[in-house]
Amino acid sequence: MPEIFDETFPKELTETGSARRRMMLMGGSAIAATAATRLLPESARAAVLGTAEKPIDFLFAIYPNGTLLDFAGPNEILSRIPNTNVRFASPEGGLVTLEKGVVFGPTEKLSDIDKVDVICVPGALNLSAMMKPEILGHVRRLSETARYVTSVCTGSIILAASGVLKGRRSACHWAFLNVLKDYGAIPDPARIVKDGRFMSGGGVTAGIDFGLAIAAELRGAQAAQEVQLLVQYDPQPPFHAGNPAEAPPAIRDVVYKKLPGSQNGLMRPVL
Amino acid sequence: MPEIFDETFPKELTETGSARRRMMLMGGSAIAATAATRLLPESARAAVLGTAEKPIDFLFAIYPNGTLLDFAGPNEILSRIPNTNVRFASPEGGLVTLEKGVVFGPTEKLSDIDKVDVICVPGALNLSAMMKPEILGHVRRLSETARYVTSVCTGSIILAASGVLKGRRSACHWAFLNVLKDYGAIPDPARIVKDGRFMSGGGVTAGIDFGLAIAAELRGAQAAQEVQLLVQYDPQPPFHAGNPAEAPPAIRDVVYKKLPGSQNGLMRPVL
Repeated sequence: MPEIFDETFPKELTETGSARRRMMLMGGSAIAATAATRLLPESARAAVLGTAEKPIDFLFAIYPNGTLLDFAGPNEILSRIPNTNVRFASPEGGLVTLEKGVVFGPTEKLSDIDKVDVICVPGALNLSAMMKPEILGHVRRLSETARYVTSVCTGSIILAASGVLKGRRSACHWAFLNVLKDYGAIPDPARIVKDGRFMSGGGVTAGIDFGLAIAAELRGAQAAQEVQLLVQYDPQPPFHAGNPAEAPPAIRDVVYKKLPGSQNGLMRPVL
Repeated sequence: MPEIFDETFPKELTETGSARRRMMLMGGSAIAATAATRLLPESARAAVLGTAEKPIDFLFAIYPNGTLLDFAGPNEILSRIPNTNVRFASPEGGLVTLEKGVVFGPTEKLSDIDKVDVICVPGALNLSAMMKPEILGHVRRLSETARYVTSVCTGSIILAASGVLKGRRSACHWAFLNVLKDYGAIPDPARIVKDGRFMSGGGVTAGIDFGLAIAAELRGAQAAQEVQLLVQYDPQPPFHAGNPAEAPPAIRDVVYKKLPGSQNGLMRPVL
């Protein structure tokens, strides 16, 4: 098929990424990752691309009970940005059962990943799969060497719990924002927050805005805007109820009541 | 776990939906669908809910090579709306390999589905998996009895090819909009289009706006806005390049060139 939407995305890398995922479905993720890397050595890849610039490894660290849109939003941006490999990893590897019982994959195993350029931790109500010391250790290890350490929604609570956000400003879903203080991070209510090499988006849908911002950071504003046009991101919400400050009081108060603690940004995720 | 985010979504239905998906992962989709329905007969369900209102069956008809965000966006809205069962079906059932090689599921088999309240067909560049006469026949059959017939992005081209959009206004991704004319539908460049029981969203990210609009149609503006606040949908794109009329000419012209035919809304999907 003519991969027309992939013209902003070098064909060789698209095929490498797809080949990696196909192999991961068929067998062990560690073997697949090694084999996929072998398909095209880095020097050869740079030559094919006509650029010496190294491809960017962008990793979504997903997990059971995670919220699909938290990473499906930025993935739709990043997977169309030139010279950028989007990868997915999870605590156990393989297919992951998300919130509402939907299944997504394939994923590599978090412990098998050596190093990435960008780590992005999406959010959920139930963060328990990531809150184990061993898994937080891998999040911390990958964050220490990554160029950018990022999150969407309550993913910032996972990053904070791993210890990497001490003294750093971070976004979070509005209902959980002040939980960041428990881990020494500084809550910032902005939709996209950048503090040095740390970037974060607010709740769920903020992942798309975050995706464009990190894409511009990585590959420039031209590339980010081309993808914005490709995915027709010209939002026109039929209502204005997307944050507590703007939502009609009758909406906001019902949601405050349904989400205990949310009025003060202190709703508790499942840890 | 405390299903706090599901307080807008009756617990019984959440469990029915999750049970259905768990069973689909384990065995045949037809058996699973039947078993899940048996879990709670409709009259009992209405009694549990304290309402005689029938739950709404909302079906995403997905397919190989489909674009994840086209349905991940509206799914995040609809799956949190009260008394609404989100279901997924595909031509072959089971897990579906989408664009870029990511896998999503489980899905029921399209031919196994008798009737739904809403059918929603998301889009892709490569529509070929849906363009077979037998599959289009199922789309037409389900559309004839559905209360609402809907689409996101180029999903409207599939609906149009099935014959159900003759003389109807419909949205589509801007680059493909005028392809709708080939099938007797009337292209409408709006982000959300409603023509009687037909509702459609524009390209990719328009699915979130569409999701809120159809949610309000089905369950009222209060329910839709509560979910908008839950998913913090207060979009703040860092650039303004989301449609050809607003994108900077330097962005727009590069994309026009990369997507042959798009300047006139006549880019060709893979059929």
